Amino acid sequence: MFSEQEKETLYKVIYTRRDIRTFVDKPVPTEAISRILNAAHHGPSVGFMQPWNFIIVTDEALKARLAWAADKERRALAIHYEDDRKEEFLNLKVEGLMQAPLTICVTSDPTRGGSHVLGRNSIPETDLLSTACAIQNMWLASCVEGLALGWVSFYKKNDVRDILSIPPHIEPVALLSIGYTDHYPASPILEMTNWASRRDLQELIFHDAWGQA
Amino acid sequence: MFSEQEKETLYKVIYTRRDIRTFVDKPVPTEAISRILNAAHHGPSVGFMQPWNFIIVTDEALKARLAWAADKERRALAIHYEDDRKEEFLNLKVEGLMQAPLTICVTSDPTRGGSHVLGRNSIPETDLLSTACAIQNMWLASCVEGLALGWVSFYKKNDVRDILSIPPHIEPVALLSIGYTDHYPASPILEMTNWASRRDLQELIFHDAWGQA
Repeated sequence: MFSEQEKETLYKVIYTRRDIRTFVDKPVPTEAISRILNAAHHGPSVGFMQPWNFIIVTDEALKARLAWAADKERRALAIHYEDDRKEEFLNLKVEGLMQAPLTICVTSDPTRGGSHVLGRNSIPETDLLSTACAIQNMWLASCVEGLALGWVSFYKKNDVRDILSIPPHIEPVALLSIGYTDHYPASPILEMTNWASRRDLQELIFHDAWGQA
Repeated sequence: MFSEQEKETLYKVIYTRRDIRTFVDKPVPTEAISRILNAAHHGPSVGFMQPWNFIIVTDEALKARLAWAADKERRALAIHYEDDRKEEFLNLKVEGLMQAPLTICVTSDPTRGGSHVLGRNSIPETDLLSTACAIQNMWLASCVEGLALGWVSFYKKNDVRDILSIPPHIEPVALLSIGYTDHYPASPILEMTNWASRRDLQELIFHDAWGQA
């Protein structure tokens, strides 16, 4: 069904994709955003529940309020780090909400599809898992569109609900800033800054039982 | 960075990928599984925590026990559906655990990366979300490898923990059956069987505030 070349292309996208926090001042084509959202909507969802919504935020005042919420949370987290780690943390750029021309708030609706969704009945968080799969599609699609995407997860959900008028039962799963960047690094930013390193995959694989190599 | 053709290839994979529950008796090349796991390991993770492990299950007795756990849960869910919906549900094939040559249990470790992982401090479920992104990479990689993947989410987590000796604090996020199939449908199985239909994407997109078209 897929050629060797197509296979290589998919792996190339998977390996190239990075989490970006620096954007340049250049508008994003509407068609690219449409394709990215369509890719999300064709993500898998347990029981075909399609629990996602997408709030496209372009209003400058709203972006500023989201950046304020993220910065509060960044400063709150800094308190939990001590000494050198605290300095290192405060030097990290954790979001580009004001720089990016748009940010998409991806939400998950735990009531979507009714009370007994096939699969969610057994594992309630399958709605969040499905939404995350949709987000990964958006990330790969952005990458191939030449666009940078940064997943911001520094916020109190109720701040984001307040800012974007999201009902209390809806989960704001991610703030995804999207735009062009002048720096798309070859490795994860947290690896380059020596914040964390990539684990050895072989140590994460077991056979037939946990812990069994 | 990516050509028009590469762009089309990614979207082709995203649109082609399906959740499969029927497998044929044909071994899966080890190299393909390695590439699929490597794709997972290059998924994004909040704070670069890489919370995932992969238990490759090929032992027939273990597969039979996983199938037993899934079938118990299927019958338990059937009780919540009534009348026609119950019949419809019981006619669905919800897993291919015995048919598939292997099933990968993907887990998420909430302690990975220490007590204060950047991002997980704010949103605890970012480990599960990261694991789901890795799973989506596996799904797309399987698709391009010509392999079928089925995400089974019918089980009690403690049954899966018991069967695969998984520690109590580790989350068994998914059972992914992988193998070749003789039927890779063009639309989701739940759509073809009229269990659920695809939503109109435009109705799921808002601008600057929830509910605002």
